Amino acid sequence: MSNLDFQPANDRYAADFGDRALLSIPPTRKLIVVTCMDARLNPSEFLGLKDGEAHVIRNAGGLAKDALRSIIISQRLLGTKDIVVIHHSNCGMLTFTDSALRSKIKEAHPGDTAISEAVKGLEFGPFANLDDSVRDDVSYLKNNPLVLKEGSITGWVYDVETGKVRQVA
Amino acid sequence: MSNLDFQPANDRYAADFGDRALLSIPPTRKLIVVTCMDARLNPSEFLGLKDGEAHVIRNAGGLAKDALRSIIISQRLLGTKDIVVIHHSNCGMLTFTDSALRSKIKEAHPGDTAISEAVKGLEFGPFANLDDSVRDDVSYLKNNPLVLKEGSITGWVYDVETGKVRQVA
Repeated sequence: MSNLDFQPANDRYAADFGDRALLSIPPTRKLIVVTCMDARLNPSEFLGLKDGEAHVIRNAGGLAKDALRSIIISQRLLGTKDIVVIHHSNCGMLTFTDSALRSKIKEAHPGDTAISEAVKGLEFGPFANLDDSVRDDVSYLKNNPLVLKEGSITGWVYDVETGKVRQVA
Repeated sequence: MSNLDFQPANDRYAADFGDRALLSIPPTRKLIVVTCMDARLNPSEFLGLKDGEAHVIRNAGGLAKDALRSIIISQRLLGTKDIVVIHHSNCGMLTFTDSALRSKIKEAHPGDTAISEAVKGLEFGPFANLDDSVRDDVSYLKNNPLVLKEGSITGWVYDVETGKVRQVA
C-alpha cells in the first residue's frame, strides 16, 4: 500500500458514517483540547471524547501560544469555554534547543543562503521541564486578555507508557 | 458528569493500553497530517491511521502556515517526509473576515484598551474558497525552503456530510 492510499480506509469509514452527518459546527461540550502532534497520542480516545464534542488543537509540544489564533476563533465564533492543555511524557520538545535545531537545519543545506536566512530567529518552543511547561502554558492563557475568563483553564500530563492523564494545573 | 471529568474514560483507556507502551517517538509511516480542529473531524479514523503512524497537527482551518514550526520539528528531528493537508466542508473559516472578527472581539469588551491593543493586526486566516485554500496551502509548503523536498505534499478536502475525502492537490 502506498503511504497515501487512504481510499480503502476512508471508504470503510464513510460506509459506516451514521448520524455524524447531523453534527453541527459548535462543539457540544464547549471544550477546547490543546495537545501535542505526537503520533502516539489519540486524545479523543484517552479523554473519551465523542465526535462533535470538542475542538482539538495539536502542534509540536501542545504549546498554548501556538494555539492562540485557534482558541480565539473557537471561543469567539463557535461558543467554546473550557480549555484543557495536555503535554506528555517522552516528548520531543524535551530533547533539543532552538540554537541546536537551527544549526542542524543549516548543516543539512551547506551554503544555502535561503535556508540560513529563513532559519534566523526561528523559535521552536522546546521546554526543559514537562510539568512546568504545562503550568507555564496555563498561566499564559489565564493572563492573555484575548482568552475568555468565563471558562476553566486546566493543565494535564499524559503518560505515553501507561495511557493515563494526571492534572498538574 | 463535570465537563472535565476525564477520569472514568481515561481509566478505561489505560486499562486496555496493551502494546501502545512500546511505540517510539518517530512516526512509523513518516507522515504528517495537517487538518482542522473542527469537533466533527476524527482524522485517524477517517484516514485509517493507527497509533504511532503519523504526526497530527490541528488548528483552526488546518492552515499550513500555522503548522510550519511543527512541520520543521517533525521532519528535522523525527524523520517524517510526506505531508497531507486536509481542509473540510462547512468550515468555520469560510464564515468571517479578519476585520469582522476583530470588531466582534472589541465590541464584547467595550472600553477595554488591553483588548483593543491585543486585537490590533491579528490575522486569523479565514478563506473564501475551500478547494483554493487547500491548493494555496500545498503551494505554500512546496515553496517554503524549510520544508523538505524529499516527501510528497498533497491536499485533500473532507466532507463533513459524508465522511469522504477527495484529493484536490
